[in-house]
Amino acid sequence: MSKTIETRSEHGCFGGRMGFYRHASEQIGAPMNFSVFVPRQATLSVVPVLYCLAGLTCNEETFMIKAGAQRLAAEYGLMLVSCDTSPRDLKLPGDSDSWDFGVAAGFYLDATQSPWSAHYRMGSYINLELPALIEANFPALRTRRGICGHSMGGHGALVTSLRDPQRWHSVSAFAPIAHPAAVPWGRKAFTHYLGADESVWQQWDASALMRRAVHPTEILVDQGEADPWLAEQLKPESLEQAARISGQALRLRRHADFDHGYWFIQTFVADHLAHHARLLHGN
Amino acid sequence: MSKTIETRSEHGCFGGRMGFYRHASEQIGAPMNFSVFVPRQATLSVVPVLYCLAGLTCNEETFMIKAGAQRLAAEYGLMLVSCDTSPRDLKLPGDSDSWDFGVAAGFYLDATQSPWSAHYRMGSYINLELPALIEANFPALRTRRGICGHSMGGHGALVTSLRDPQRWHSVSAFAPIAHPAAVPWGRKAFTHYLGADESVWQQWDASALMRRAVHPTEILVDQGEADPWLAEQLKPESLEQAARISGQALRLRRHADFDHGYWFIQTFVADHLAHHARLLHGN
Repeated sequence: MSKTIETRSEHGCFGGRMGFYRHASEQIGAPMNFSVFVPRQATLSVVPVLYCLAGLTCNEETFMIKAGAQRLAAEYGLMLVSCDTSPRDLKLPGDSDSWDFGVAAGFYLDATQSPWSAHYRMGSYINLELPALIEANFPALRTRRGICGHSMGGHGALVTSLRDPQRWHSVSAFAPIAHPAAVPWGRKAFTHYLGADESVWQQWDASALMRRAVHPTEILVDQGEADPWLAEQLKPESLEQAARISGQALRLRRHADFDHGYWFIQTFVADHLAHHARLLHGN
Repeated sequence: MSKTIETRSEHGCFGGRMGFYRHASEQIGAPMNFSVFVPRQATLSVVPVLYCLAGLTCNEETFMIKAGAQRLAAEYGLMLVSCDTSPRDLKLPGDSDSWDFGVAAGFYLDATQSPWSAHYRMGSYINLELPALIEANFPALRTRRGICGHSMGGHGALVTSLRDPQRWHSVSAFAPIAHPAAVPWGRKAFTHYLGADESVWQQWDASALMRRAVHPTEILVDQGEADPWLAEQLKPESLEQAARISGQALRLRRHADFDHGYWFIQTFVADHLAHHARLLHGN
């Protein structure tokens, strides 16, 4: 492993290895924490990687601890990668004043506004730097990458794959912020990170992107109907509208009685891993 | 549900319901938090309950969030119950000075020494009060109870079931503190909670109990060989010695490459749920 990666801890898990790491990120200009589950199959050959993006207030541990995905990744021979949701410990003015902006709320975009533009480059970090780091240092297939995420991370998974569809071969989301330019969480973040010109926001809005760009695979989205954020912040119907316009293949499932948390995610994570395994092992 | 139970949150999960609650405990003389997973099968008839005891520093959320047991409980039709690992917020002198004694370190015993004896009665809480509360307020079978636990909670599961084997119909443990009277964690706790007379300690020591009492079912214990606490604090070999003396049926499995945490537990939790389901649904 590269000397640039600090191993924080590694643990046996389902015949593979669950590890927590840190590296000095060039995009972020600061240390970034990330986590990797390497399945047993990777001792024989490189395996496809599924990147898992967490939501507001979360970090590189959240998806790994709460989603229950390792059992399935071990079965399918998929590597799992997660990372922190923003830079940490920079102490930029205002970065810790609210739970939905700044620290743990990087929104997986490249900020253009000062002071955020110097460090809040989670868009390029997820699309470019983290895959390059993983593929150089872990037994990862360089030609097949999947991406999924929850809430803000669902927004991240959709936006990353729609902006650069050739780099991402499977996409899914749990309760994504599907139309951030139109909801309070997104409007607050985009105003600070991207400025007041809302036309710029369209480049980081999944529903806007999906209206004019198509990912070549079917996108799987699960949404709980008892999710308290559904109507005000998530707006999955805007994805359906966009998919109708562009012809994007979208499988959006609504589930009665499920809310926004990982109890919902762990119930349906098997379907997401199967979706990614089918597309990532497809050829 | 009884007015004495405060519902803190409930969530859809694997077709059942994951809930977090609080009640005023008589044994503890203070509020206690607990958590319950009710499987879908309980809408038709009462179901057996598996009590899951967490370890040092943990609370009623830990096992439920990290073990990955709900998927299996939903499949087998088992209710899962977990609870906090000690009283909280009493501010007894010295109860928060160390992570291995006092708050989050109740050791599932009934303290005899002041000031602990007034509140640190986790032994009777687990054996009597919590099952009575669950069976009065949830669709729980009153005649079949299982118990499992991790580390300090593994000690709790073994001790509770060996002290009162007629009340417990299936037993298992992950990396239990198997002989607390002989290890630093246990000796510290027992000295404070039970006093200096070590003959009293034998009543709360799984290896001592197993030497002279037999649980009627086979006890399943899993232990990682890369567990940093194995030699100094856990001593599973003392259970094997006790089982040879008394004739206790014990299935103790050692696993290379696994350490002490929930990455280990989630890897083997399916075997534990199967063990309990077989015994609890047995008749």
